[in-house]
Amino acid sequence: MIVKNNSVHLETVGEGVQRKILATGGKMMAVEVHFKKGAVGTVHTHPHEQISYIVSGSFEFEMDGKKEILKAGDTYYVAPNAAHGVVALEDSMIVDIFTPQREDFLK
Amino acid sequence: MIVKNNSVHLETVGEGVQRKILATGGKMMAVEVHFKKGAVGTVHTHPHEQISYIVSGSFEFEMDGKKEILKAGDTYYVAPNAAHGVVALEDSMIVDIFTPQREDFLK
Repeated sequence: MIVKNNSVHLETVGEGVQRKILATGGKMMAVEVHFKKGAVGTVHTHPHEQISYIVSGSFEFEMDGKKEILKAGDTYYVAPNAAHGVVALEDSMIVDIFTPQREDFLK
Repeated sequence: MIVKNNSVHLETVGEGVQRKILATGGKMMAVEVHFKKGAVGTVHTHPHEQISYIVSGSFEFEMDGKKEILKAGDTYYVAPNAAHGVVALEDSMIVDIFTPQREDFLK
């Protein structure tokens, strides 16, 4: 199953935050998230496992209360129900991959 | 669990193909794969599910005998045991995320 990036509408999901749901299948889903400088992905939890890959820009990433500066090429793994969030330090883009799928995103 | 890109050694795994194993945890693993122009990821299968995100460049992607040209931002989902492969049309980079982890990569 192929999803071409330019076939997907960029959906606004928060102040300075937009996303595209890309390839999904089986127990996996990929979501591209675009952040304007200063935009916040509020600290939150979900039961899904997640790996994120920073495609461009940089973030202050927080997980379980610890903060770290991450930039393009850096990755992180989020265990089920681990509290995590980001603040974009510049215009930035990240890809989040979830297992299982975020069915809450598909409504 | 955070993995910074520049903390990981780029491992040569084939002619013009190098990879970095990035974040891993639970049932997930992220692998960055660098291809020189013309390099081939031979058509192969594995029981793991996979989502791939093209970070830069372009590929001729083949799955189950069908070919398609993909470029930066495009994604695909590979079901368990689906035959898939790529040919890099220029110097290119892709991120593969697997579930479960590719334990064969960790030896």
